[in-house]
Amino acid sequence: MGEFDLIARYFTRPVRRAALGVGDDCALLAPAPGMQLAVSCDMLVEGRHFFADVDPEALGHKALAVNLSDLAACGARPLAFTLALALPRADEPWLKAFAGGLLRLADAHDCELIGGDTTAGPLNICITVFGEVPAGGALLRSGARAGDDIYVSGTLGDARLALDALRSHPQAAALSPALLATARQRLERPTPRVALGLALRGVASSALDVSDGLLGDLGHILRASGVGARIELAWTTDLIAGYAVLTRASAEFDADYLEQCVLAGGDDYELAFTAPPSLRDAVAAAAQASGARVTRIGVIEATPGLRLVDARGLPVTRHYASFDHFA
Amino acid sequence: MGEFDLIARYFTRPVRRAALGVGDDCALLAPAPGMQLAVSCDMLVEGRHFFADVDPEALGHKALAVNLSDLAACGARPLAFTLALALPRADEPWLKAFAGGLLRLADAHDCELIGGDTTAGPLNICITVFGEVPAGGALLRSGARAGDDIYVSGTLGDARLALDALRSHPQAAALSPALLATARQRLERPTPRVALGLALRGVASSALDVSDGLLGDLGHILRASGVGARIELAWTTDLIAGYAVLTRASAEFDADYLEQCVLAGGDDYELAFTAPPSLRDAVAAAAQASGARVTRIGVIEATPGLRLVDARGLPVTRHYASFDHFA
Repeated sequence: MGEFDLIARYFTRPVRRAALGVGDDCALLAPAPGMQLAVSCDMLVEGRHFFADVDPEALGHKALAVNLSDLAACGARPLAFTLALALPRADEPWLKAFAGGLLRLADAHDCELIGGDTTAGPLNICITVFGEVPAGGALLRSGARAGDDIYVSGTLGDARLALDALRSHPQAAALSPALLATARQRLERPTPRVALGLALRGVASSALDVSDGLLGDLGHILRASGVGARIELAWTTDLIAGYAVLTRASAEFDADYLEQCVLAGGDDYELAFTAPPSLRDAVAAAAQASGARVTRIGVIEATPGLRLVDARGLPVTRHYASFDHFA
Repeated sequence: MGEFDLIARYFTRPVRRAALGVGDDCALLAPAPGMQLAVSCDMLVEGRHFFADVDPEALGHKALAVNLSDLAACGARPLAFTLALALPRADEPWLKAFAGGLLRLADAHDCELIGGDTTAGPLNICITVFGEVPAGGALLRSGARAGDDIYVSGTLGDARLALDALRSHPQAAALSPALLATARQRLERPTPRVALGLALRGVASSALDVSDGLLGDLGHILRASGVGARIELAWTTDLIAGYAVLTRASAEFDADYLEQCVLAGGDDYELAFTAPPSLRDAVAAAAQASGARVTRIGVIEATPGLRLVDARGLPVTRHYASFDHFA
């Protein structure tokens, strides 16, 4: 038995929900009657999506988390995933930690590993995830309508702050070690908003997950829905309030830099979504039920384009370049 | 729009069979009532699964072909696939050729690209493929029973011969350029036996695809089924007859080397399967209907282990090391 067979065996566990798991030419999934299968796929590459010296336990967590976040954005319930792994060598302690982080998050969401592939090669992690959603009930990017409220879950910007600090960005260098450790959790161990996505079924008119930065990602909803949006910058300050490291450290940073982190930082894995004003109570109930903070940040308008206004309603013309979200 | 958005757009086409294709957080698949979804995943890495200078059109073909071969081995009808691609740079002519080879094979099997991911990184191709199979009707590795016949489709060994010739293996160096070109087609553009897999539903008791070499792969069926097998080496000579380059070039090669290519060569992507002797006519009809040659090579026995016998029924004790199937 070669070392890569050993690796494969490391990840092989009995399946409970799939009809057939690891070990044959294919795995078999049997979606419940009336359910569609939501499918998403992300590939993580060393140096681009994570540092070479990243904690492998955190990497295992994040590799699945970014995929679960896509299911959350569709309102799909996690079901199963495949893992393809290229590794430069079979490093047992690394694999044990990676598998631990991966499978702990998988277990927390009752999402089982049903197959995959392992090979020698430059480190590369490719996960394809499967979820169930009632036929016609998936949250799409294309459903936003003029007049809908725009929301974002959780807090934004900490992941970017951590990334900049780790890369010795001059703006982020002032971050204290204790706050960096907290912000780094947001970068390396994002929380997929699965429960919120499920609670927003039948409530949100559109949704996506914020992976490349709020404003850039909102643009996907606007284009897919054929609408525009007005974002109230004063309301977005709530996004850096509360638990965000950004807030606690804010005295040490330039305000423009903080705003950039929040609005275009990336790697947040929060949900951005829209819902009609008539469903504000339902949105609040969904947030409550799923234990996720939700902040209303603007409104969908018929005129295409994304308009930012300040507290006095005046247009803000600053350019929020979408950061290249790594490397 | 960045270069990787352009790449993504290169592969984005309207879907016909999926409920939702490329462009949202998830794609949506709706298996027909009573059908299970067969899922398989393969990752191809430069230097391990293909040469750096491989024709990108052939690479696109092979990347999907090896996945379709897994569906074939389960008797599943191709439905859709996701593609994750790490590329060192956006080389348009390379991408055009790669997409051409990939999508031509996809179209031939009515298997549509529903999503994926592109990123910068060392060249890596990860495809996850989805097929439909009636609930309970998938061909598994675990169904072989004592007394069943053992079959292999097509011909074996040409891919190995081509690989050895390209790597200047002394045994294969004598191969003429014309024969190498033909054998190379088998290495670089394998034919997934999808139609045969479908025709074998309800006929074969077990099946898998031969990717790592016949004897090694047969071992998977034997272990999964808890049985053994007797292989009649005299019967396997049919596997190198007919269209196989090996036959036409056989005068130039050592007989042991040829046998090694056939029995343990790898990269063949033919189906190995078992069926009760009472269904020999049905096997022949399935082969006829799908246009695939099928050769009977032995019989399943109750005693575990794989026994090779020569034309006189005497045990053959040669060791057929499973080649490491690349690099």
